[in-house]
Amino acid sequence: MDRTRPIGVFDSGIGGLTVLRELRRTLPGESFAYLGDTARVPYGNRGEDTIVRYARMACAFLDRRGMKALVVACNTVSSVALDVLRVEFDMPVLGVIDPPAREAARVAPGGRIGVLGTRRTVNSGAYDRAVKTADSRCEVYSEAAPLLVPLVEEGWTDGVVPEEVARRYLAPLVEKRIDALILGCTHYPLLAPLVGRALFGLAGREIPIVDSAGSVAREAARFLAERDLERPASGPPAISFHVTDNPDSFADVGGRFLGTELDRDQVELVDL
Amino acid sequence: MDRTRPIGVFDSGIGGLTVLRELRRTLPGESFAYLGDTARVPYGNRGEDTIVRYARMACAFLDRRGMKALVVACNTVSSVALDVLRVEFDMPVLGVIDPPAREAARVAPGGRIGVLGTRRTVNSGAYDRAVKTADSRCEVYSEAAPLLVPLVEEGWTDGVVPEEVARRYLAPLVEKRIDALILGCTHYPLLAPLVGRALFGLAGREIPIVDSAGSVAREAARFLAERDLERPASGPPAISFHVTDNPDSFADVGGRFLGTELDRDQVELVDL
Repeated sequence: MDRTRPIGVFDSGIGGLTVLRELRRTLPGESFAYLGDTARVPYGNRGEDTIVRYARMACAFLDRRGMKALVVACNTVSSVALDVLRVEFDMPVLGVIDPPAREAARVAPGGRIGVLGTRRTVNSGAYDRAVKTADSRCEVYSEAAPLLVPLVEEGWTDGVVPEEVARRYLAPLVEKRIDALILGCTHYPLLAPLVGRALFGLAGREIPIVDSAGSVAREAARFLAERDLERPASGPPAISFHVTDNPDSFADVGGRFLGTELDRDQVELVDL
Repeated sequence: MDRTRPIGVFDSGIGGLTVLRELRRTLPGESFAYLGDTARVPYGNRGEDTIVRYARMACAFLDRRGMKALVVACNTVSSVALDVLRVEFDMPVLGVIDPPAREAARVAPGGRIGVLGTRRTVNSGAYDRAVKTADSRCEVYSEAAPLLVPLVEEGWTDGVVPEEVARRYLAPLVEKRIDALILGCTHYPLLAPLVGRALFGLAGREIPIVDSAGSVAREAARFLAERDLERPASGPPAISFHVTDNPDSFADVGGRFLGTELDRDQVELVDL
């Protein structure tokens, strides 16, 4: 495998940019290509066959452009299509569910793990399975938090409203006396400081928070190091963005998720 | 047309039940059949061709069961597919956008009309066109309010959070000195009391609120009366519910939208 190739990052929309942000922070020497299937977002309401079909098309697009690895920065695709992608494509494929599940089991071995996620993710039971696989003694308690994604998309990540909303979703988890909390949605890192304060307020003690973006980035770094796939220092790394619809609004809103300005010129409109 | 037949009510999901609620209140002698395409909700993210195709399938389903009229209780379908349905089906088809637009122009002739809706509805400009068609002197000011649907679906229709959210969306409309407000989404009637209080609080005066459910019901009543299509008094009217997925959760959540208990046994799972 050519070590100079970029790492592909794929999400149904814009949320995966929080994962890309952590990847760039953790792996500043790597090149990245981000694909957001913004024409068909959200995947959450589609049937499993459709999700697999979309994921395959996205993966093929990135594969054609030559990636050395793929990060599936989408909870829905990670819970449904990862095995198919791993069989059908030559490049290594990392999902977004196992890394935080393993990290939560590491910070709270045999403990009580709370999960916040979308209704779809919670109903899928994907985090329950992943945490139990990492440490079968752990107990998992999940809360569907459907208001958090629209709050983040509205840019409403501070103040009385998101605080009250966070408290409402966290209260039942605190009642279960959780030892660690997984933020199980790529939108949630933007709410992490607020969730942390609300959790401390409710529990009266520090509870470790594991967000998928950070866990995935650390796992990707380990993965590259183990396989000697790190990009050699040879000029500045490249970054590219590809979307299937609405490049303007992707550039507009994306900066907030990515943590740096996103220029419209950097975003390519593509057909899968 | 057989006057004893039911009126079909179609929505992509559960929101149209607020329209059915007003229809039953206004036309207590009529029979109704409600179809929610819960397998493919929400339509808002689909392309126009797909929305037309889905709407055609839903309409055909109700047509096969013999309706005397169809109410499209879905903003997305009403803004995209109404003309196609009217050409392809024999029964009269009422949408959910023109009635409140006309009513707003009636209560505030030549006035400044505010609209709250989903981002998709606001971007479509459907209410702008409908209000201008009703009264070309009117000005229309729209606000996308993406948090309101998840608030309603969470059952969070009272208290500090929905109040703050409503104030935030209403403030720019109050600044435009609107003379009437259209609640341009079938979920919003459940927030009408709260929106009314917030609007009064911000404006310091009573601003008439037109919700689509009530407007559509009054328009349907006029329509039936004019064409002599009212159901003759012959035994109690029938009501039936048909969904394409998740009949259990439809029955669970639906009662809140319908304003009366909804029995799981009343809900039929169907294929379109």
